[in-house]
Amino acid sequence: MSKVVYLNGSFVDYAEAVVPVEDRGFVFADGVYEVIRFYGGKPFAAEEHLARLRRSAEAIKLDGLPSTQELMEAALETVDRNGCVNATLYLQVTRGPAPRKHEFPASEVPVTVFMIAREVPRPDAERVNRGVACITVPDIRWHRCDIKSIALLPNVLAKQQAAEAGAAEAIFVRDGIVTEGGSSNFFMVRGECLFTHPADEHILAGITRDYVLSLARKLQIEVREETFGMSEVENADEVFITSTGIEVLPVTTIDGKPVGNGVPGPVTKRLWQAFDDSISKL
Amino acid sequence: MSKVVYLNGSFVDYAEAVVPVEDRGFVFADGVYEVIRFYGGKPFAAEEHLARLRRSAEAIKLDGLPSTQELMEAALETVDRNGCVNATLYLQVTRGPAPRKHEFPASEVPVTVFMIAREVPRPDAERVNRGVACITVPDIRWHRCDIKSIALLPNVLAKQQAAEAGAAEAIFVRDGIVTEGGSSNFFMVRGECLFTHPADEHILAGITRDYVLSLARKLQIEVREETFGMSEVENADEVFITSTGIEVLPVTTIDGKPVGNGVPGPVTKRLWQAFDDSISKL
Repeated sequence: MSKVVYLNGSFVDYAEAVVPVEDRGFVFADGVYEVIRFYGGKPFAAEEHLARLRRSAEAIKLDGLPSTQELMEAALETVDRNGCVNATLYLQVTRGPAPRKHEFPASEVPVTVFMIAREVPRPDAERVNRGVACITVPDIRWHRCDIKSIALLPNVLAKQQAAEAGAAEAIFVRDGIVTEGGSSNFFMVRGECLFTHPADEHILAGITRDYVLSLARKLQIEVREETFGMSEVENADEVFITSTGIEVLPVTTIDGKPVGNGVPGPVTKRLWQAFDDSISKL
Repeated sequence: MSKVVYLNGSFVDYAEAVVPVEDRGFVFADGVYEVIRFYGGKPFAAEEHLARLRRSAEAIKLDGLPSTQELMEAALETVDRNGCVNATLYLQVTRGPAPRKHEFPASEVPVTVFMIAREVPRPDAERVNRGVACITVPDIRWHRCDIKSIALLPNVLAKQQAAEAGAAEAIFVRDGIVTEGGSSNFFMVRGECLFTHPADEHILAGITRDYVLSLARKLQIEVREETFGMSEVENADEVFITSTGIEVLPVTTIDGKPVGNGVPGPVTKRLWQAFDDSISKL
C-alpha cells in the first residue's frame, strides 16, 4: 500500500487522497498519464516519460502543467517518502474540476496532478525464461493511441479478457494489422530482423519500445518499424512484448498456438540481457 | 451550483463530494453514465435511461449496480433536495476504487455511484427558431459508441473544436458516413423522409432519438434508419440534432454552408412541436 500520495502540490495520506466528483478526469477521461520505473531508487528514462507527458497534454490541449523540473522533484519525493527502491511512479494530470460540460472550462480552473509510488520488484526471472501466453483481440480503440490518455476502458476490457483466458496480455489487431498490447508494445523476430509497428497514431510509442530498439541497433540487429499481420506473426521465430513494468517479456503462445518453437528465442534473450545490463549500470 | 450530491448511498455537500484518486473512473474511465431530464419536477423517460444504464454496465461487465428502483428513488431525491424543477440529473457508476491495475478488481470492491442535479431551463425558443451552426469532424472514436461510457475524451475534443469554430455541435463522420454529434444524434430530412444512422455500435441510441422516431411515426413521417454521407446531407432539405438536453434543435449551417434554404424546416418544426406537446402533457 502506498502510504503517501502527491496531490496538487501536497503530500497526503492515501486514505485522504481524493478528487472532486466533477474532476474532468472522473467524468470525461480528460487527462493524461505516465508510469516511470525506479530501479534502486533511481528513475529510469524519467526525462523521456516527462517529455511524452507534455506531448500527450499538448495533443489534448491541456495547458497549465507544472514545469518538468517541478514534476521531476515531486516524483522523486513521492518515491522517497514511500521508501520505495524498485518501484513504479504513476503520474496523472487532468483538466481539473469544473461543473460538467464537454467544452474546456475557464482557464482559471487548475489542472489536477496526482502521483503514487509503489514498490514493484523486477520481473520474475523464471517467468521471463518460460515466456507468457497472449491472446489477440480486435483493436476497437480510438485513432489517437499515440496519446497516453486515461480513456483506457477499451484496454481494461481487453486485458480483462486476456486474464480470463489465462493469458498475460491481449494483443490488438486492427484491420488485419497487429498494433500493440493492451499495455505493452509488440515485437516479432523473423530471420535476423526485428519488426514492430511504426510509431504512428495507432500505437503508443513506448519508452521501453524506443529503448529496446536502440539496444537492438547497438547489437547490430536489423530493425524494421513496419506493419504486419497475424499471418506473419504465425511464421515468426520469436515474439516479445515490452513496457515500463514488464521490461522485455518473451511471448511463447498466441491464441493457444506456439510462437516459433514455443520457447523464448535467442534474439529476445540477447535484448533482455542487454536491457538487464543497462539497469544494473544505472 | 448543485448544493447536495448523491454519493454511494448518502447525500453530501457538493464541496465534500469526492472520490479516491484510484477510483477506476478516475484512472481508467471504467464507468458508465446517464443524464435524465426533469420537467416541472417530473422525470422524462427515466425508465428508458435506467434500462440503458444497465445495458451499458453489462456491456463493460460492470456488476453490482444498485437496483433500478433504488437508483430511481435516489435520482428523485437528488432533484428534490436541490429544489430543482426543470433540471438534468447526471448519474455515473464506476467500477470503484482499487490499486491501479487494468484487470477488474476483486468482486468485493463496491461500485461508485454518483448523482448530481442542476436546474437547466428548456431550450431557448429563439435559438430553436433560428437554428444552429455545426461543424464536421473525423469520427476517430472507438467502435463501441453504443456504450454510454465515461471515456469521453474524443467527444470533449470534438465539442471544444466546435465551440472554437463558433458552432453548437461537432458532427462525427466515419469512413464517409455521418454517425452522430459529439453529444447528440443527427437527423436529415430529404423529401418526405426522415433519415438517421441505425442504432449500431457506431452511435449511442439516444433516448430522445428513439422518442423523436416514435413521434415521427405517429405523425406519419416516413422514417429510415440508414447510413448516409455528407454528400447526401448537402442535398438535404432539413437537418436537426437531438439529445436529452437540447431536445430537437434545427441545424441551419454545417461547415459554414447552409442546410436546405438555411432556416429550420417544416418537418423539424412539426417534430419539435410534437415533442413540446409531449412535455407539456407530462
